[in-house]
Amino acid sequence: MHPVDTLGEPRFDSPLDSSSASFVFDAPGELEHAGPRARIFFDPRKARAAIVTCGGLCPGTNNVIRALYLTLFHRYGVHSVTGFRFGLAGMVSGGPEPLHLTPEIVRHVHRIGGTLLGTSRGRQSDAAIVDTLQQMAIDMLFMIGGNGTIRAAADIHAEIARRKLPIAVVVIPKTIDDDVPVIDKTFGFDTAVGHAAAAIDAAHAEALGAQNGIGIVKLMGRDSGFVAAHATIASGEANFCLLPEVQFDLDAFFNAVRARLLLRGHAVIVVAEGCGAGLVRPGVERDASGNVRYASPELDIGTHIRDAMKTYFALARFPVNIKYIDPSYTIRAAIADANDAIYATELARNAAHAGMAGRTNVLVGRLRGEWMHLPLELVSRADRRVDRALWLTVREITGQDDLAPKLTGAPLRT
Amino acid sequence: MHPVDTLGEPRFDSPLDSSSASFVFDAPGELEHAGPRARIFFDPRKARAAIVTCGGLCPGTNNVIRALYLTLFHRYGVHSVTGFRFGLAGMVSGGPEPLHLTPEIVRHVHRIGGTLLGTSRGRQSDAAIVDTLQQMAIDMLFMIGGNGTIRAAADIHAEIARRKLPIAVVVIPKTIDDDVPVIDKTFGFDTAVGHAAAAIDAAHAEALGAQNGIGIVKLMGRDSGFVAAHATIASGEANFCLLPEVQFDLDAFFNAVRARLLLRGHAVIVVAEGCGAGLVRPGVERDASGNVRYASPELDIGTHIRDAMKTYFALARFPVNIKYIDPSYTIRAAIADANDAIYATELARNAAHAGMAGRTNVLVGRLRGEWMHLPLELVSRADRRVDRALWLTVREITGQDDLAPKLTGAPLRT
Amino acid sequence: MHPVDTLGEPRFDSPLDSSSASFVFDAPGELEHAGPRARIFFDPRKARAAIVTCGGLCPGTNNVIRALYLTLFHRYGVHSVTGFRFGLAGMVSGGPEPLHLTPEIVRHVHRIGGTLLGTSRGRQSDAAIVDTLQQMAIDMLFMIGGNGTIRAAADIHAEIARRKLPIAVVVIPKTIDDDVPVIDKTFGFDTAVGHAAAAIDAAHAEALGAQNGIGIVKLMGRDSGFVAAHATIASGEANFCLLPEVQFDLDAFFNAVRARLLLRGHAVIVVAEGCGAGLVRPGVERDASGNVRYASPELDIGTHIRDAMKTYFALARFPVNIKYIDPSYTIRAAIADANDAIYATELARNAAHAGMAGRTNVLVGRLRGEWMHLPLELVSRADRRVDRALWLTVREITGQDDLAPKLTGAPLRT
Amino acid sequence: MHPVDTLGEPRFDSPLDSSSASFVFDAPGELEHAGPRARIFFDPRKARAAIVTCGGLCPGTNNVIRALYLTLFHRYGVHSVTGFRFGLAGMVSGGPEPLHLTPEIVRHVHRIGGTLLGTSRGRQSDAAIVDTLQQMAIDMLFMIGGNGTIRAAADIHAEIARRKLPIAVVVIPKTIDDDVPVIDKTFGFDTAVGHAAAAIDAAHAEALGAQNGIGIVKLMGRDSGFVAAHATIASGEANFCLLPEVQFDLDAFFNAVRARLLLRGHAVIVVAEGCGAGLVRPGVERDASGNVRYASPELDIGTHIRDAMKTYFALARFPVNIKYIDPSYTIRAAIADANDAIYATELARNAAHAGMAGRTNVLVGRLRGEWMHLPLELVSRADRRVDRALWLTVREITGQDDLAPKLTGAPLRT
Repeated sequence: MHPVDTLGEPRFDSPLDSSSASFVFDAPGELEHAGPRARIFFDPRKARAAIVTCGGLCPGTNNVIRALYLTLFHRYGVHSVTGFRFGLAGMVSGGPEPLHLTPEIVRHVHRIGGTLLGTSRGRQSDAAIVDTLQQMAIDMLFMIGGNGTIRAAADIHAEIARRKLPIAVVVIPKTIDDDVPVIDKTFGFDTAVGHAAAAIDAAHAEALGAQNGIGIVKLMGRDSGFVAAHATIASGEANFCLLPEVQFDLDAFFNAVRARLLLRGHAVIVVAEGCGAGLVRPGVERDASGNVRYASPELDIGTHIRDAMKTYFALARFPVNIKYIDPSYTIRAAIADANDAIYATELARNAAHAGMAGRTNVLVGRLRGEWMHLPLELVSRADRRVDRALWLTVREITGQDDLAPKLTGAPLRT
Repeated sequence: MHPVDTLGEPRFDSPLDSSSASFVFDAPGELEHAGPRARIFFDPRKARAAIVTCGGLCPGTNNVIRALYLTLFHRYGVHSVTGFRFGLAGMVSGGPEPLHLTPEIVRHVHRIGGTLLGTSRGRQSDAAIVDTLQQMAIDMLFMIGGNGTIRAAADIHAEIARRKLPIAVVVIPKTIDDDVPVIDKTFGFDTAVGHAAAAIDAAHAEALGAQNGIGIVKLMGRDSGFVAAHATIASGEANFCLLPEVQFDLDAFFNAVRARLLLRGHAVIVVAEGCGAGLVRPGVERDASGNVRYASPELDIGTHIRDAMKTYFALARFPVNIKYIDPSYTIRAAIADANDAIYATELARNAAHAGMAGRTNVLVGRLRGEWMHLPLELVSRADRRVDRALWLTVREITGQDDLAPKLTGAPLRT
Repeated sequence: MHPVDTLGEPRFDSPLDSSSASFVFDAPGELEHAGPRARIFFDPRKARAAIVTCGGLCPGTNNVIRALYLTLFHRYGVHSVTGFRFGLAGMVSGGPEPLHLTPEIVRHVHRIGGTLLGTSRGRQSDAAIVDTLQQMAIDMLFMIGGNGTIRAAADIHAEIARRKLPIAVVVIPKTIDDDVPVIDKTFGFDTAVGHAAAAIDAAHAEALGAQNGIGIVKLMGRDSGFVAAHATIASGEANFCLLPEVQFDLDAFFNAVRARLLLRGHAVIVVAEGCGAGLVRPGVERDASGNVRYASPELDIGTHIRDAMKTYFALARFPVNIKYIDPSYTIRAAIADANDAIYATELARNAAHAGMAGRTNVLVGRLRGEWMHLPLELVSRADRRVDRALWLTVREITGQDDLAPKLTGAPLRT
Repeated sequence: MHPVDTLGEPRFDSPLDSSSASFVFDAPGELEHAGPRARIFFDPRKARAAIVTCGGLCPGTNNVIRALYLTLFHRYGVHSVTGFRFGLAGMVSGGPEPLHLTPEIVRHVHRIGGTLLGTSRGRQSDAAIVDTLQQMAIDMLFMIGGNGTIRAAADIHAEIARRKLPIAVVVIPKTIDDDVPVIDKTFGFDTAVGHAAAAIDAAHAEALGAQNGIGIVKLMGRDSGFVAAHATIASGEANFCLLPEVQFDLDAFFNAVRARLLLRGHAVIVVAEGCGAGLVRPGVERDASGNVRYASPELDIGTHIRDAMKTYFALARFPVNIKYIDPSYTIRAAIADANDAIYATELARNAAHAGMAGRTNVLVGRLRGEWMHLPLELVSRADRRVDRALWLTVREITGQDDLAPKLTGAPLRT
């Protein structure tokens, strides 16, 4: 049983019309469905909501902000919706000024990439954040972010509970890597895969265009290789795909690339950001969210592999023509495709319903096709990883061999 | 329990390497998982496969053909793969000549819309079809089509069984309407929704561009409104969405459009092909598949509504500016997006595995995230329809009222 | 010599910095170059500008409005810019209320199709329009429209001149058909051709997908076939292209389609809106701009040809499968591609410079690569038409024969 | 007067029908128009053609190859068309094997990026190349490439002339930088600008998404900044644009970026590949074509500026958030947009006509809207550069100041 925290008994009738809203009734002893309730906790005429976006850019973030605002404003009649600027940094005293949202501001924002509110990584003092919420008399805080944000939300909720404040904390999961556990998927992932597959097609054209042409595409995926794996399947043109979940031996890999060049004259390689742990100096640098930072030159696995490959083929006196493509920032900043637009919209609407009903310490997500309320602790225990079935599909599509001949044990770390 | 028909005990070792394929082992008493088997029924060196595409165009069809061919050719070493031309019409004596597939023919075909093989609607004599299969010594027939094709496949299988022939019949479900029951979804649907949402955005621009501007978008959906409903959510710009599953009163609808024009000065309307049963002369004309044909002028609900609306507003001396958009053929002929490309590829690979393992009378599909073998009878019993939850989401997005005030009972026919 | 009308000697120094603006100096006796002037006619601090969009939707219109506004606001410091709503209808007493433009309103508007201001066809009383300009103390009127708008602008200027008012009238040419004479091209045309070519590709997929499949694409082009001709070349998949400029015989055309079906089994046909004059009842209905209205069922050449073709093949007992695509409204409402975005931006900037310098009765356009001021009378004398060279290129690409065997004289009307 | 070299008097009637081809008649004393001739030099039934692609990838190259092949094959009946693989490297003994083109090979190739034939940089012995042409009995050599290829073509022609061989050498200009002089533009440029503008939009989203966010986009443009300048105008979101033609002072630039951050909190910077000559070690490394190679880490101006900027702001204790985007390989490998598809098609058709007519030592190009034959010497004298008018437009769009305060003289090198 996974009870969801609530701020108390509902106190108001929902302004939503029962003929147009499928009110949800709760059953004991199981996960709670998301959706509008007939009776709600906050008085819509007086309620004050706030939104914050954390972590990296992700397609669909503006769709979420827009649908949240429009549901609160048009459906519930909530007129005070504040946007904190630049992540948690905007929630503490001395940070950037918050933005008062209006219909005009959100009107076309789903046609623009990025996040209207700005974002940042890293934590701030939970006490300072709750101070701000109190001072601004915020009733509902909607936090859009990934695994780090889920942890922050739980801590902010704990501080709110300690102070016995009636403030709801609702998380809308956002990670372009699609590695939040339990739930079906995260918004932005489909869009990312589409753009990533196009980059692989470009690398294929580059590789085919030169004698012994090698196209390398580095994709996001710090701890999980979902974008890389799916883009590889979607494109169908990659010959090697290196994932964080699968160990490989650099020499075995280079030998396999060389064998392919001898046979076919070109090769296309997909490299997920976090693959090859141990190949680059591990763990020495972490970003403000506590994640290992791979982007600095010494730690970037993509350029590391590119440069090591140059050396390998130079030593072998085997002329190659390497083209390196890193589309990550372009992908992150893309506009959501229709599929992600739908997912982001439904997610935001259900989050608004959860907040108005007084649910807190909760994440909204889709579980086997159903929209649910998930206690934060349920989704913060572990991360999702590429499993053996998906990995074997990738191997079948690429035709690549086992690249870790010297290793024993299962190639998948999970 | 849903046992799947098989042609007999497996007789050959699979040429797939156990290190690269996740061989599936069957458990009794439940649905069978799709995937490669360690032991297979057909000798890959001698096996002869055939592919046929039936029904309307659908994004991703060429991806299916290509992935089927490449899996059979490269993974199993099957060298004889025939493409029947123009649906079942190409499977009988006197029909168009079949095409012998080669790597060169399928090479870039996923970059092209439509179907490489051509298609048609309607049945042919099962006996004549099986005669052809016998004469050409086909071992595996892969049929790509929707609910009509599922019924045809079952009948062809029955004729094969009557003759005690070892020919596998494997169906790959294809319907742009996404109305095949049981399975999660069909390929092409995401792509269709994306293009349909863009058409709604265009209708919105047209409606905004004129005083009392009305943009009407007619979308596919003969019996189910999934494309229309999802495109409405994705775009977010439609004010009315009429689905086959939901009854409405034409006068109530026109009154609601008029009320919106008085309030906001423009209106965007999405009309699914099969909505408004009873409004146009019903059932008088059926196409070769036995489906009601709505495209003829008298039966086309889209133009019917457009013309009736012109009359309504003319009588009311209320000047309006109606723009009518029917993007159906353009959507059907689109290239698959990345999401559909992945789905089509996995579907085709699993179909190839099913055929090589001797499964027959079977449909390959994804069920709650797992790839399964489904007996044809299981999916032919009923069609999938828009349910109340999706309908209420559509109502919430559009803000439209109940448009059937005079009717009693549930608005959803299912 | 083509002198451009001016409101008088320049009276103010331009706020533009000579180091960042390439000030234009006028030479006698030739066409005047567009661009910023060191000395201008209106006082930027007090000047009041207005914008109106007329005629049909066209990709890039919002880019023009946005660039006009930003140039006036940021470069010159003009703070009063009014948008008249819904064309000339918004410029007379009793019409829709005008809109006061702000940076927030135009911010993302180039990501949206259509026109922010709305549009309409047809004329209003010139006196009533000038009354409005006087009452609102407008100094500069920017009119965005096609050949009809050029004529209206000249008449409005005449009324202004009669009243001896210092109001500048500057036309920014907008026609998706690219048929404004003298100038190089109009914005939106490239975007339209791109989308039109995609529709032809779709028709090709539809035609290939059926036995004796015929795909018909109807495109805009009331009097000139530039969109149809260029889309035919871009796609390369059309077999017949019917233009307003080229006479054809319907029987000869149908015979040629039949001959192609016998030879190749499919045919793709592009039909420009205004082709086949005389085939449909000519000239009985005109829209508010005075143009023949082809969209009504009896006058729509596309559906006329489709239906006549059905009859022709039915009489011949020759089964065909016709798919008809009319993407016009979708194309008109598209977002401008990069090429058109650049063109629209430069056009608008030069229009702003012209207005500030007191030029009037003038159209801004590019002439052999140079941005110029063109007196309205110069561009209103005749329209541009497809010439023989372009037509022969179309014939070469399609491989179509002369379709007017019974006619004598040149096939091109111009 | 610019006479074009010909191989001799025409000897055959063209197989093209005078009713479908606009035969060109030559006038003395001026540039010769491109187009089909009524009398041609080579016997179409026996003629042997060859195609080679040189230099970097460029959108539209496959459209050129396809249209060349289809014009020669379908219009003239030439059946032997050879594709040399990987540039000039495939034209000498011991190089990669050439490819015999067929309709099937070129069928869908315009839907694929890159070049079907492969390419390379660098020269080969002219004598060895002409040896190959003789051995293969090639009559017409079509060379697709940029300024380096023009020089190579002239030398190959000289060797052919020395041997008195009747072999035509026709150049089809290809440079994504659009820096070939005299002619209007080169194919692929529009497509490149469109993708480059999208990358700037992404950089803008990234910059807006962070406090003191800086988005840097590096674009192609070794010696000329046309892609960077036009993409800057198309996007409208860049605040600084650094071109090869304009000198700037790094400190002045960094100070200006800092000033903008203080004012607006974000900055978007476009950097053309060849800007800042003198900032990176100049001229020490050249690629096989003799061009300075900027891609090696030490010489890459984009990463150099990024890293220097990091140091600048670190020293200033001014925290910034820099995102660096280099979309060059993705842009090069894109599929041609409709505009470039048309241009590439017309270019190729005119090149085929020129070759069949026996023109040699010639480049085909469009000059002020007209398709012309240009002697190679005419276009090899100088390269095209961004001029002052375009530069000032860029300055106006970006609002950037003069960044070379310490320098005297004109900012534009040309």
